[in-house]
Amino acid sequence: MTGLPNSTPEHLLASDRDAGFEIGPEFERFDQMNDMFTRAMWDPKVQSKDSDGFFSSYRMEAAPRRGEGFAQRDFALRNAAWIVSDVISNRSAGDGRREGFQGHILNDTPVAADQVELRAPEREASEIKRLAKLFGADLCGITHFDLRWHYTRRPDTRDMTPIPDPLPEGLTHVIVMGHAMDFDLVETYPSALAGAATGLEYSHETAIVLQLAAYIRNLGFDAVPSMNDSALVIPYAIKAGLGEYGRNQMVLTPEFGPRVRFSKIFTNMPLAVDKVRELGLSAYCLDCTICADACPVKALPDGKPQWAGGSPSTIKGVRKWSANCEACFGYWVKLKSDCAICMRVCPFNNRGGWRDVIWCKIARSRWRALARWWAEKRARTRTKPRMWWNEGGGK
Amino acid sequence: MTGLPNSTPEHLLASDRDAGFEIGPEFERFDQMNDMFTRAMWDPKVQSKDSDGFFSSYRMEAAPRRGEGFAQRDFALRNAAWIVSDVISNRSAGDGRREGFQGHILNDTPVAADQVELRAPEREASEIKRLAKLFGADLCGITHFDLRWHYTRRPDTRDMTPIPDPLPEGLTHVIVMGHAMDFDLVETYPSALAGAATGLEYSHETAIVLQLAAYIRNLGFDAVPSMNDSALVIPYAIKAGLGEYGRNQMVLTPEFGPRVRFSKIFTNMPLAVDKVRELGLSAYCLDCTICADACPVKALPDGKPQWAGGSPSTIKGVRKWSANCEACFGYWVKLKSDCAICMRVCPFNNRGGWRDVIWCKIARSRWRALARWWAEKRARTRTKPRMWWNEGGGK
Repeated sequence: MTGLPNSTPEHLLASDRDAGFEIGPEFERFDQMNDMFTRAMWDPKVQSKDSDGFFSSYRMEAAPRRGEGFAQRDFALRNAAWIVSDVISNRSAGDGRREGFQGHILNDTPVAADQVELRAPEREASEIKRLAKLFGADLCGITHFDLRWHYTRRPDTRDMTPIPDPLPEGLTHVIVMGHAMDFDLVETYPSALAGAATGLEYSHETAIVLQLAAYIRNLGFDAVPSMNDSALVIPYAIKAGLGEYGRNQMVLTPEFGPRVRFSKIFTNMPLAVDKVRELGLSAYCLDCTICADACPVKALPDGKPQWAGGSPSTIKGVRKWSANCEACFGYWVKLKSDCAICMRVCPFNNRGGWRDVIWCKIARSRWRALARWWAEKRARTRTKPRMWWNEGGGK
Repeated sequence: MTGLPNSTPEHLLASDRDAGFEIGPEFERFDQMNDMFTRAMWDPKVQSKDSDGFFSSYRMEAAPRRGEGFAQRDFALRNAAWIVSDVISNRSAGDGRREGFQGHILNDTPVAADQVELRAPEREASEIKRLAKLFGADLCGITHFDLRWHYTRRPDTRDMTPIPDPLPEGLTHVIVMGHAMDFDLVETYPSALAGAATGLEYSHETAIVLQLAAYIRNLGFDAVPSMNDSALVIPYAIKAGLGEYGRNQMVLTPEFGPRVRFSKIFTNMPLAVDKVRELGLSAYCLDCTICADACPVKALPDGKPQWAGGSPSTIKGVRKWSANCEACFGYWVKLKSDCAICMRVCPFNNRGGWRDVIWCKIARSRWRALARWWAEKRARTRTKPRMWWNEGGGK
């Protein structure tokens, strides 16, 4: 536990230990200029005809038409699913901000002049979680604001130059929300059809972060709605007690396995924070390589967590499982859609039927070797997109 | 059945008969300048300090703070719930259009140049309904486009002058979607808190009409997303087989009673239409006056359906139950929030537990007199807003 930024307060370091985070002397905050999506817009090592085609496929006139799972109806559904997210993310395009992706979401609601009288932080936290669910979130946890996970810079999307994206001063807490993706659509990965599951949750989370942040601002506190912008959500989701890190680079949750997206709200409202939870999910990953084996471009690691580095798209100085991001994204741009085979095949991604519940219970216990054996018997094959269209996704 | 506009095609007149619509020689298409919300912005008989205060209460700096159900947290939640709808409805304010309310929603998606190959209209209709539910609609039905229900004019919201709001040429079908309101919030009517149930569904329907219309446009057909703008949704919802007209001026559905909002999409995609359904709901209303009795300003009729007229806010030449809109809206502006006591007390508004299912079955049968007797025993009292906040709405 050496080499941590000197300024990191002790309570955050203590929760690093609880979460099993290993952060070394090479640790550097991440620069959003280096994420794969951003690099595909400026880095000649990543940008290509295929990557340009990937982005333009989100407009129908440029979407491919090439057979099952990638035909006009599939792209039509995927692109329609995204539209609420698109409307918000595009509204500041003229100012070089892609709200919720490259730059935080701008607020539509001023902070009320009167602050409500607050009750105990535990009571306020449980109310916020209840309202997050009323607005449609599937999971909600709260943790401390932690500058280490925040991007140093974002691109100005007009010319892809790096610029700061300052948040208001004095933010102290982060509300992390989970949004479960549609099981039946995910069963069709890889396909443009499956990308509708992604678009649906981006649209849901856009609506939900806008609503919950507006609520907090209406109470007289600051709140910034955030999706993929501003900070890495994975460490925040783990610190908020929502899950553990998986071999497939995703947060695994007891409720949905990796089949969940996360959004966040930064606030100065005093709220009780959640504890990190030991869930037995990462422990299972240590001896399971189903996701790595299923990856068509072998982008996932099959060994133990390593000190990350190597690619500019991988955060430095953290011991963790890290993907070959270039290989992963290279596959996406060939498909002209997002791939999440590693989410689909994860044995923690299941319908939640009674056999699934029993399997999860065993997998998270010290009998996990038995669960690994059983997981092989239980492995599902991909749903063919035409089955989804014809039969309601196997339901 | 005299006096119908000569241009109304026979298949629409036939479905009027199925639906029990009685349309007389005085029938005139409705002018949106005359709806209560629009009149409150220009008609000195309706506009007042209270009505201006009603509209401004949707901004926190002008929201009242006056005790249970109308305190800062109640308005904070209500106003936050509305925000997705607000973002869309405000984006063309500079052009005098309040999208989804006074003017249809402008499209963010061009109609794709390639039209997909269509299957049978029945197959396309069932697919559209399935996708409406995937996007989050609770009900979906399809009917013919019918100019009679369309507003003759809308206001330019910059100066409230009447202007036309033309839809594209060639629209043939209307997809009507139902969005169930939160039961526990509705139990607190009248309160600003309960208005969150309204805001939540306006925000949901905004997202859903944007998505489903984008899907149809991505298939190469025209589609216009619509909420309260452009046309009366009640006749469309009934024609689409979703429900029947109730004494409380709402469409009663078998699934949710009156606790449901409706949105619509106008399209030229060839789709099979639904049949009007005889559901036994209006028949129950004939001898039930629970809603009229509960109305604090006695705005609801307690007799039989009448030839409507009298108020400019009531459509002319239709025999139906009609409220005293001025009295109804007068109560809203006093509350500084929407009132739907008449939705809450309707016996068809229930949780859908097994006793509710049995009650509904009897109420919709010829034994409805028995159901009326039982309904009195089953009547619930209002949930106090503080109970909702303290206890999760009685759950």
